[in-house]
Amino acid sequence: MNSRPLTVAIVGATGAVGMEFLRCLAERRFPVKELRLLASARSVGRELSFDGKALVVQELTEKSFEGVDIALFSAGGGISKRYAPIAVAAGAIVVDNSSAFRMDPEVPLVIPEINAGAIAGHKGIVANPNCAAIIAITPLWPIHQHNRIRRMTIATYQAASGAGAAAMDELADSTRAYLDGRAFQPRVLPHPYAFNLFSHNTAIDPETGYNDEETKVMRETRKIYGDPDLRLSATCVRVPVLRAHAAAVTFECERPIDEARVRVLLANAPGVRLVDDRERNIFPMPRDASQQDDILVGRIRQDLGDPSGHSISLFVAGDQLLKGAALNAVQIAEHLLAA
Amino acid sequence: MNSRPLTVAIVGATGAVGMEFLRCLAERRFPVKELRLLASARSVGRELSFDGKALVVQELTEKSFEGVDIALFSAGGGISKRYAPIAVAAGAIVVDNSSAFRMDPEVPLVIPEINAGAIAGHKGIVANPNCAAIIAITPLWPIHQHNRIRRMTIATYQAASGAGAAAMDELADSTRAYLDGRAFQPRVLPHPYAFNLFSHNTAIDPETGYNDEETKVMRETRKIYGDPDLRLSATCVRVPVLRAHAAAVTFECERPIDEARVRVLLANAPGVRLVDDRERNIFPMPRDASQQDDILVGRIRQDLGDPSGHSISLFVAGDQLLKGAALNAVQIAEHLLAA
Repeated sequence: MNSRPLTVAIVGATGAVGMEFLRCLAERRFPVKELRLLASARSVGRELSFDGKALVVQELTEKSFEGVDIALFSAGGGISKRYAPIAVAAGAIVVDNSSAFRMDPEVPLVIPEINAGAIAGHKGIVANPNCAAIIAITPLWPIHQHNRIRRMTIATYQAASGAGAAAMDELADSTRAYLDGRAFQPRVLPHPYAFNLFSHNTAIDPETGYNDEETKVMRETRKIYGDPDLRLSATCVRVPVLRAHAAAVTFECERPIDEARVRVLLANAPGVRLVDDRERNIFPMPRDASQQDDILVGRIRQDLGDPSGHSISLFVAGDQLLKGAALNAVQIAEHLLAA
Repeated sequence: MNSRPLTVAIVGATGAVGMEFLRCLAERRFPVKELRLLASARSVGRELSFDGKALVVQELTEKSFEGVDIALFSAGGGISKRYAPIAVAAGAIVVDNSSAFRMDPEVPLVIPEINAGAIAGHKGIVANPNCAAIIAITPLWPIHQHNRIRRMTIATYQAASGAGAAAMDELADSTRAYLDGRAFQPRVLPHPYAFNLFSHNTAIDPETGYNDEETKVMRETRKIYGDPDLRLSATCVRVPVLRAHAAAVTFECERPIDEARVRVLLANAPGVRLVDDRERNIFPMPRDASQQDDILVGRIRQDLGDPSGHSISLFVAGDQLLKGAALNAVQIAEHLLAA
């Protein structure tokens, strides 16, 4: 696209991720000629600020994509399934944050630090991976390249933001009600959220017993890594945190691996910041990861459950709305620019 | 002890666990002739209610244990190290909730559902295990007996109560401050707690990289199970929850194991309640586990990271103050009664 100023559309502009698209595009000085904010009818007329200017939200229709170069979608799988092909037909390239196309073999599924090269093969749509997958596996990629990871066990600590702005509000509102001794009826999430946690609120596959979120983490990791034989299991849990996901990860490599080597690999990894201060007990926390581009990684240690020396445990935290969603999508768009 | 009414002392009576000792003794109709509430000088004179009567807190001194049959300690390792031997010398049997004596080979470390038989060998002190260990491993015992578990990987989601009543207050107070937009300076815990989580706030072993809490879970599990070769690793994390711990557990058995078999074993396990409703997405949650004697267990599924069929993943939640502390200690005292 030769870096010429582009017409960019944001589908789902008023959502939690939509707002971060606006900020990422502005902060990263993405060459925007025109920014088209699209949302459902009930948000039409709302004004959002982009780079100091007020822009008015327009209704998403089949005609929204004329003249659009890049369309960033984050309005749920149903909207993506319906409107992404329309955007592509109108000449746009879609970067889709929903799960609609992620496992489509025709659609690249990309974390730029891992497989930016896959973007070139797109046929109009590039998929942005699941947020928990991005945050758990981006830091492991340099290790996987050095000494293939053959098994991962992931337990997540996922923030409200993954379920959208309304879930973030529900966490705050229900917590205030709890502290005030008032009853609160959950509207967005199926369980009480104040000072509570629960298994991820997606449907369970009756065959495997894994929920959809876990299945996404497992399948998408294999596709992004390009390693269909990678064995992994995930346990996805929603915790009362606002906008950064964390995960405890244990992985096993093909050859013995030393924690010192892992630390060196991670110290030089793009998109990752080592936070691993054993003496002062400072490790990745959602509060520190919030509003940060980098994924924080620490608690790096030889896994004592595997005396063969093939396994390492560590802990990560990353902003769900940024690297888990908007930032990763804008990074993909930047690669499209350079193509 | 032939079930004759006993003189019972509670050391640390005004703490979060101390208060639960009072409730457990009353609710379980423990045969108490006299209850002596002991605490530091600053709590002296405070009145606590036991079985409808008001009892006055007395200062813990070297003379506090005359005539005491059973002393329940929960006032930290320092107090236990100093006063438990004095209580034993005065003729009491000590059930100690601190970590002071847990790894002492002379001291039984007991979860009654697992190794009640070890109590008989005591020499005056019986140790109550680490709360995260109790909640993670009690449900796994029937499985271990059926098909030896050779490896466990545990990631915890630990409540404020494990750090005492002041930490529970800090969670509530800091969360209210956050919601009100006020600054809050942590006093009890080293990190901001409102809508945050952090690696367990115990010292890290510079050799292994594991924190003390994790080391306790690993060592104590081997001792309680009587299986020094059991390989395990734990990642212990403090989450913004008030009084129930949860854990994601993956374990590997010596022989292949089927999730249906695990479900049957757990349905009949003492101290455990199956909460595993895939259709309605209802699984163990701290809110449901709070104030409950049973440990909730669910998300039982074949671990997809181990195609050999030897591994299972599941999720547990249990009340940290009850089964994780006071209830387990009172159960031990009940076994002492029956001896």
